[in-house]
Amino acid sequence: MKRTIDVCLSPDLMHLYPVKDQSVVVVDILRATSCMTTAFAHDIDSIRTFAQLPECLALKEDGYLTAGERDGKRVDGFDLGNSPFEYMNPGLKGKKIAFTTTNGTQAIAKASGARDIIIGSFLNLSAVVRYLQATPNDVLIVCSGWKGKVNLEDTVFAGALVEKLNGEFEHACDASIIAQRLYQQAQSDLKAFLKDSSHIKRLHRLNIRKDIEFCLTEDQYDVVPVIRDNQITVVKP
Amino acid sequence: MKRTIDVCLSPDLMHLYPVKDQSVVVVDILRATSCMTTAFAHDIDSIRTFAQLPECLALKEDGYLTAGERDGKRVDGFDLGNSPFEYMNPGLKGKKIAFTTTNGTQAIAKASGARDIIIGSFLNLSAVVRYLQATPNDVLIVCSGWKGKVNLEDTVFAGALVEKLNGEFEHACDASIIAQRLYQQAQSDLKAFLKDSSHIKRLHRLNIRKDIEFCLTEDQYDVVPVIRDNQITVVKP
Repeated sequence: MKRTIDVCLSPDLMHLYPVKDQSVVVVDILRATSCMTTAFAHDIDSIRTFAQLPECLALKEDGYLTAGERDGKRVDGFDLGNSPFEYMNPGLKGKKIAFTTTNGTQAIAKASGARDIIIGSFLNLSAVVRYLQATPNDVLIVCSGWKGKVNLEDTVFAGALVEKLNGEFEHACDASIIAQRLYQQAQSDLKAFLKDSSHIKRLHRLNIRKDIEFCLTEDQYDVVPVIRDNQITVVKP
Repeated sequence: MKRTIDVCLSPDLMHLYPVKDQSVVVVDILRATSCMTTAFAHDIDSIRTFAQLPECLALKEDGYLTAGERDGKRVDGFDLGNSPFEYMNPGLKGKKIAFTTTNGTQAIAKASGARDIIIGSFLNLSAVVRYLQATPNDVLIVCSGWKGKVNLEDTVFAGALVEKLNGEFEHACDASIIAQRLYQQAQSDLKAFLKDSSHIKRLHRLNIRKDIEFCLTEDQYDVVPVIRDNQITVVKP
């Protein structure tokens, strides 16, 4: 029997998906999981994620760098924001980061209890595909969305993963079919397909076109961040 | 300023959508809203909908016919099931119906409080489009899904409505973009596009191929069922 693959289009639907025996891939393309992938590709030690700001700030005392955003903007007093380019700094090597974002960290929190939790982005798409192929579990992709609502870029990324794993997995329900069909429509020109996305319009107003372009680039990095003992760390290939 | 159109892909996301000032179109293509449309096209008087079976049965004493399904199957002791062909009976003229289904009536219950609630299906697609064009409100399409999960056929219908209203409305968020793109992909051969739908597979096992084919046919009827005073009734063109 084939393994199943499923997509949860919003963290607000996570109550419908039992995660206990699943490998859960958490996705927040713009920009939390893209930043995390970039950070691990630049040899940071680990990330702890927090849904709330104060818990995140408290880690500063333990030598963590604080990182993240609220409503697409860097948090006042934090060391790092939510642009992947900030994480390309060789000075981050070996550092520990405390991370919070509007949507991504909330999705990670809701995935807790899963057999395995993986951080996915276009930047490490093929590395995540190989990782999932090598593990025995059914797969659930959790889209972070925007404040509970479904978004286009996370859904299309989920579809990319479904498409690449096609043949080895079967759809558990219609959400993975929807995501895959969207990716099939989008893949020849991802940027054009996503130009109407409400979050991309929101980010354009914040003037971060370069971030968006980078976050939509497949296979920049060969790292697979995973959660072990309540923190994100990296699986060396 | 253009009016906005939005899509709620699952009743479990309705907490994110304020409905007070909206025209809400409730959709359960397979098969509740398709049955309701068919029933009104055959001159029934009205429908009351119930999320629970006992409340529905209680209406029998008041002369209502009982109708609906649980898990795709007719309920024992009910007068009518959930096949549109059962509602093509001239003997139903003037009758009142008490209706319950797994998903459709729950979506209707969650739409309560909206400025206007409309019953949509492929069978009355153009009639619903004309109705929405003639009213001044923003539009929210609520997909009934399957036990909280997103389904393909309701999403594609939502996309059909968005597509037909294109130009007069703007997308309120990404869900309406996702639905519209799916419909654009599906419209040349709806049946083929939907053949992998989990609910269609479920119904095929129950042997109701004919129902599915009919429910995917556009513009069979020129009726617009709407909710007035807690019951569904029909707006004459």
